[in-house]
Amino acid sequence: MGFSGRLIVYGGKGALGNACVSAFKSKNWWVASIDLAVNDDAHANVLVKPTGSWTDQESQVLSDVATVIGSERLDAVICVAGGWAGGNATHKDFIKNADAMWKQSVWASSIAAAIAAKHLKEGGFISLPGAAPAVSGTPGMIGYGMAKAAIHQLTKSLAAPDSGLPANCNVVATLPLTLDTPMNRKWMSAADKSTWTPMDYIVELFVKWTQGHDRVASGSLVKFITEQNQTRIEIV
Amino acid sequence: MGFSGRLIVYGGKGALGNACVSAFKSKNWWVASIDLAVNDDAHANVLVKPTGSWTDQESQVLSDVATVIGSERLDAVICVAGGWAGGNATHKDFIKNADAMWKQSVWASSIAAAIAAKHLKEGGFISLPGAAPAVSGTPGMIGYGMAKAAIHQLTKSLAAPDSGLPANCNVVATLPLTLDTPMNRKWMSAADKSTWTPMDYIVELFVKWTQGHDRVASGSLVKFITEQNQTRIEIV
Repeated sequence: MGFSGRLIVYGGKGALGNACVSAFKSKNWWVASIDLAVNDDAHANVLVKPTGSWTDQESQVLSDVATVIGSERLDAVICVAGGWAGGNATHKDFIKNADAMWKQSVWASSIAAAIAAKHLKEGGFISLPGAAPAVSGTPGMIGYGMAKAAIHQLTKSLAAPDSGLPANCNVVATLPLTLDTPMNRKWMSAADKSTWTPMDYIVELFVKWTQGHDRVASGSLVKFITEQNQTRIEIV
Repeated sequence: MGFSGRLIVYGGKGALGNACVSAFKSKNWWVASIDLAVNDDAHANVLVKPTGSWTDQESQVLSDVATVIGSERLDAVICVAGGWAGGNATHKDFIKNADAMWKQSVWASSIAAAIAAKHLKEGGFISLPGAAPAVSGTPGMIGYGMAKAAIHQLTKSLAAPDSGLPANCNVVATLPLTLDTPMNRKWMSAADKSTWTPMDYIVELFVKWTQGHDRVASGSLVKFITEQNQTRIEIV
């Protein structure tokens, strides 16, 4: 059976990741999920084993990815893996949380970059998870801001010549403020949701960009602005 | 005996760190060095023990710093700790080098921030080690760029309200391109040194800024531009 395309969703078991898996599958794409738990909707799963070391995680994930991909090339690698933790410089968990943010966000994004470098087609698409606040200072969530700033800079590095990606790839970072996810609805139930970005908006852009439609310049940090339930993007 | 001021140099055994220790000591400052090895010129030394964990390093360094400082407050924390390693996304050591850069640069800078939050005086000075190339993409040294971008963003976070620093502190990141150090002269002996920034230029600025003279806006990324043996700074 012929697929319309092939992609990996890194963080495919989270809310946005799951939405990506479903959307691409419904368009006849082959979809693999990388996450701590299995996504039953995906055609293939790579489970990230808990490990204390970035290089161990890289070896394990790259080896398992090679197994599920075989000799095929990917059209896209979409990384939506990450987490959130706060803390300013006097917070008792400042460093502990910074460490967690690095491991959850930057390990995943840089391993996604290594996967893209190995398995993406020429002209392929890669998206990494940024954050709008990290474009400037984030004093109440210092570790989170450092990790997201690193991902923004990684996006620019990957888009530059000789980054190791195949020719003509398109690399972006998505910078939402607050996503409209079930978890955010649960934990911030009283918040004004008219400024939350719907996951579908982002997923529809991913569907277009993976197919080469309406791409923004490679290396772009794509900020999502939602006001009065209307979302637009802005390159920052 | 009264000292003119008190500071910690994080990375006090490296070339620039050692220059800082000497310069401030000659001006009657009390100087403590934090590094892997003892700086015999310093009034006190905190040795960073090799460890696999960021939080363990934080505990050990903060505890030892509290011991050497006692009840005194610091006028400045100058962090010049870091390293360099290259590698694009297909490099066999891409992740290994990114991990090393994170540990050498970001661990030190964020622990320096925690020290500053605990021990700095109101109106104190803190400097963190950035890098000019990391303001945009660094495809040939991806891990280095991510670590330095994180330090740039940390600088902005610390300068923002409620970062945890005492009131009216001044936080900057120094962004040199190439420093004129003995190691760089050894490894890049054929290079054009007229564009290398002399360490003395930076040390003299540190001396002024710690005393409150000619400070730049807190949160500034201070780029050092050296052309034809003339150095100037530019806020980026």
